[in-house]
Amino acid sequence: MAHPDDAELWAGGTLALHAEHGVTVTIAVASHDPTRDAEATAGADILGAEIRSLPELTAETVADLMRHLRPEVVITHTTADAHPDHHNASRTVLAALPDVVINTGHPLRVYGCETYNGLTLDGTTQPQTIIDISDTYATKTQALHAHRSQPITDHFGPMAENLARLWGARIGTTYAEAFTPIPVLGRLPATHHL
Amino acid sequence: MAHPDDAELWAGGTLALHAEHGVTVTIAVASHDPTRDAEATAGADILGAEIRSLPELTAETVADLMRHLRPEVVITHTTADAHPDHHNASRTVLAALPDVVINTGHPLRVYGCETYNGLTLDGTTQPQTIIDISDTYATKTQALHAHRSQPITDHFGPMAENLARLWGARIGTTYAEAFTPIPVLGRLPATHHL
Amino acid sequence: MAHPDDAELWAGGTLALHAEHGVTVTIAVASHDPTRDAEATAGADILGAEIRSLPELTAETVADLMRHLRPEVVITHTTADAHPDHHNASRTVLAALPDVVINTGHPLRVYGCETYNGLTLDGTTQPQTIIDISDTYATKTQALHAHRSQPITDHFGPMAENLARLWGARIGTTYAEAFTPIPVLGRLPATHHL
Amino acid sequence: MAHPDDAELWAGGTLALHAEHGVTVTIAVASHDPTRDAEATAGADILGAEIRSLPELTAETVADLMRHLRPEVVITHTTADAHPDHHNASRTVLAALPDVVINTGHPLRVYGCETYNGLTLDGTTQPQTIIDISDTYATKTQALHAHRSQPITDHFGPMAENLARLWGARIGTTYAEAFTPIPVLGRLPATHHL
Amino acid sequence: MAHPDDAELWAGGTLALHAEHGVTVTIAVASHDPTRDAEATAGADILGAEIRSLPELTAETVADLMRHLRPEVVITHTTADAHPDHHNASRTVLAALPDVVINTGHPLRVYGCETYNGLTLDGTTQPQTIIDISDTYATKTQALHAHRSQPITDHFGPMAENLARLWGARIGTTYAEAFTPIPVLGRLPATHHL
Amino acid sequence: MAHPDDAELWAGGTLALHAEHGVTVTIAVASHDPTRDAEATAGADILGAEIRSLPELTAETVADLMRHLRPEVVITHTTADAHPDHHNASRTVLAALPDVVINTGHPLRVYGCETYNGLTLDGTTQPQTIIDISDTYATKTQALHAHRSQPITDHFGPMAENLARLWGARIGTTYAEAFTPIPVLGRLPATHHL
Repeated sequence: MAHPDDAELWAGGTLALHAEHGVTVTIAVASHDPTRDAEATAGADILGAEIRSLPELTAETVADLMRHLRPEVVITHTTADAHPDHHNASRTVLAALPDVVINTGHPLRVYGCETYNGLTLDGTTQPQTIIDISDTYATKTQALHAHRSQPITDHFGPMAENLARLWGARIGTTYAEAFTPIPVLGRLPATHHL
Repeated sequence: MAHPDDAELWAGGTLALHAEHGVTVTIAVASHDPTRDAEATAGADILGAEIRSLPELTAETVADLMRHLRPEVVITHTTADAHPDHHNASRTVLAALPDVVINTGHPLRVYGCETYNGLTLDGTTQPQTIIDISDTYATKTQALHAHRSQPITDHFGPMAENLARLWGARIGTTYAEAFTPIPVLGRLPATHHL
Repeated sequence: MAHPDDAELWAGGTLALHAEHGVTVTIAVASHDPTRDAEATAGADILGAEIRSLPELTAETVADLMRHLRPEVVITHTTADAHPDHHNASRTVLAALPDVVINTGHPLRVYGCETYNGLTLDGTTQPQTIIDISDTYATKTQALHAHRSQPITDHFGPMAENLARLWGARIGTTYAEAFTPIPVLGRLPATHHL
Repeated sequence: MAHPDDAELWAGGTLALHAEHGVTVTIAVASHDPTRDAEATAGADILGAEIRSLPELTAETVADLMRHLRPEVVITHTTADAHPDHHNASRTVLAALPDVVINTGHPLRVYGCETYNGLTLDGTTQPQTIIDISDTYATKTQALHAHRSQPITDHFGPMAENLARLWGARIGTTYAEAFTPIPVLGRLPATHHL
Repeated sequence: MAHPDDAELWAGGTLALHAEHGVTVTIAVASHDPTRDAEATAGADILGAEIRSLPELTAETVADLMRHLRPEVVITHTTADAHPDHHNASRTVLAALPDVVINTGHPLRVYGCETYNGLTLDGTTQPQTIIDISDTYATKTQALHAHRSQPITDHFGPMAENLARLWGARIGTTYAEAFTPIPVLGRLPATHHL
Repeated sequence: MAHPDDAELWAGGTLALHAEHGVTVTIAVASHDPTRDAEATAGADILGAEIRSLPELTAETVADLMRHLRPEVVITHTTADAHPDHHNASRTVLAALPDVVINTGHPLRVYGCETYNGLTLDGTTQPQTIIDISDTYATKTQALHAHRSQPITDHFGPMAENLARLWGARIGTTYAEAFTPIPVLGRLPATHHL
């Protein structure tokens, strides 16, 4: 992720949901300053995740981490994200992927997460993978507020609520988060039943 | 489905897979002639499904059947399908849906199935829901060949194999079938984990 | 519009805004039953609009009305709308347009309005024309609740609020409604300044 | 084609070009009134084509004509065309196709032609098949002006010139016309060399 | 803008129109050589704009300029532009935006301008914001011809005329220019009335 | 091309077909190691092509080669390719193009080739230019197997066969390869007849 609060903003409910089901969740983010790094750790704690602070977000540091962790799933930004830092983080993960996948078989699946108000440079986010986070929405909100130096109450909080309600409405629930599968060497995630 | 062999062609592996897992599978198709109706019944038997032969495919007959069966999932063609019979069958199901959904809460999810060589009038099929049918591919093929009056060996058999191999490659398996979720009163299927 | 409450649901804030600025607003809808027709009239009153109840929604009745009213702008559903009644209403207006436009020069502009949760059969609604309705959102909500026979509180009210907040966030305001321009004999609306 | 001047407007240069190379060109159009039918014949003469006036444009009349002519190529409107008559003509040809193709092997290729100012209901026309008509542009213009009852000088003439120049610029020539391949039982036209 | 004549080519009529209405128009472009820089100044003069020649086009120089000017609107290329210099200029502006917007609240709106013959790497330009430049087309043409070292008469002049006539036809006027809104921290431009 | 076996994988049948028709075919690829470079030469020999091993793939080395060879057609990857090396190679060719095209008039046409299983970051490959390679499929396969250090039998061979069969089915033949035209200074390839 590009910024210390991106994990909470775009995927916090989903990470908390997976953590609750016993999945090991690790959040990798570029180190910023001591204040924001501490906020990232606090937020990750609330989600039930471990933070990995990378000195720099490069294809090498990301590849090293993936080789070490061998994750089943990686969540990053999409290349169509309108925020340049998100775009660059996505490109960095994509650059690290092929070698790691060929050598370790991991990750099995990669997803790009939602962006500001469901908008990318190419238009609106196409909803493909929508996760019901009604059960972990309170946890997501709490983790988001751990980023005290950021304008959560005025800016990111209401945006996150709007989006969670929109995606929730699209699957007939209260709150949800949305993801887009990213092909890995030409492979997409399978669905197990309709 | 518009034609007696459509269920086998586009969704046979998926139907067999669900039937094997104990799901009740019903195939609704417009009655054609005694030969083709008998082939449809034979094909459905092989897939583990029950056939429902509708005298005519109208919004009313489809709505009546859905009200009676209360299916969790409905599979039909997509409105972008280049074959006009497929297009019309899809429009008929869409016309039947709103009232039935509002009154019975069913179906919960609706999918459009693949079309000829992954092509629609608007371009190529966008892969959103891809089901691994490697375990039921032999059953699908056997059911397809029950349609003896049709050019299966020369025409539909190779096409079905090509497509199953393509979609299989996209999820890293041998054979697969692909579906596109169709919004039902603004709701899409949820995904339960990444 | 296809249903008596469609005007309020998808365009109520925008209609009220135009009415407040002195624009004559007429809502044309197929007559349903006395209860719903009365609700439609009550809703239109609140928005500052006049209701035109058509005995049937056909290309002829719609063309006659447009020839009579010579509207500057027409708002209808989009052809990609997942609800079949909305799709049909849109096709009906499109069928009525060419002759009326060639003979009267009206309407000048035609827009398709938002659909359930921003979803069409082809994916998500692409936001092109987003109107700030923060000032008339209360009026929209009040008009929506005039449809007492409908599940407004449980179903349509929360959906309308979600959508209004989403589109609002996309233009940096509280509430908004979204529209897509529909080409009229190959002409789209012009923008007057950036 | 839906209207007597559609062939000239959207495909006149291409038809003349094929006629010049010895290809038999037949224009099928619904009979309108004696004036417009005579104009259609005059226009077709100039293009080097034969006119087939169908009493009505139905799947049956179109299928009969295709069974009789066994054309290599069929040009019609696209289903995304914003003009409802064009949309309906396209749907009629699509409805006639499958049986004729299965029984006669013809047509081999089907194309949808350009629409008003390159705009469809889904957005702009995607240029896939662009034909240089610089050599037959004068013929196209002359044939278009054979439709004396129509607003050619004021309306359709300048539009046709604009479009021909736009498509010409896209292939580095003076004038061109654009077409979109329509899949026929899942088959698209092949390209013979790059 | 990437090249000294880009402002005139893609947005000259729109810039002149805004200048005529009293809007302050500044054109920022990377310094090339004395000849082309002088042409850029001459072109800007004709449009009623001021030129800002940046020694280099980097996120820093662009951010500094935006912090200083606090523009209401920024026009740049789109990231889908097929010309790599245009693509890079667009990426540079996008990289400069977030910090400046967060700190100064400006620019309020960002647009990508048209590209060669309405074509991007992803297909044709989708027309969202089309400005009637019939009144300033002569000014645009005159400013374009100030770039004497460039192949205006043979190459860019006819292309600009073709495009202006195409976009003009799409809004029912003689000449126009087209733009695509680019989301700024998830916000798009609002429309004030239909 | 980014990797020594990319030419065979994505375009081998098409290159062999053109070579058979007397077209001079040159494959430019970044030098890897002696083993893979030798495999690339062996593969090119089988296809009837000459290999040009570039010490590095930069805009300069690519531009120099194009200035020297003045090719009619250039085939590269697409910018939407999910493999970052393919994306970068495509960007490099795009960066080299404008100057070379303006100065030499070559290449006349540029195509992006297919990617893993027909999938890009933006969804599925849109089929625009499909070449029948049934006559040279054996040659393609043989050339592919010249890359002995690569997992051809297990991985790339079956993928290439799947894709060739899919694209073949889409044009009614056995095997095919697919390409997307890339605009060159706003120009796309023309089609000579329908």
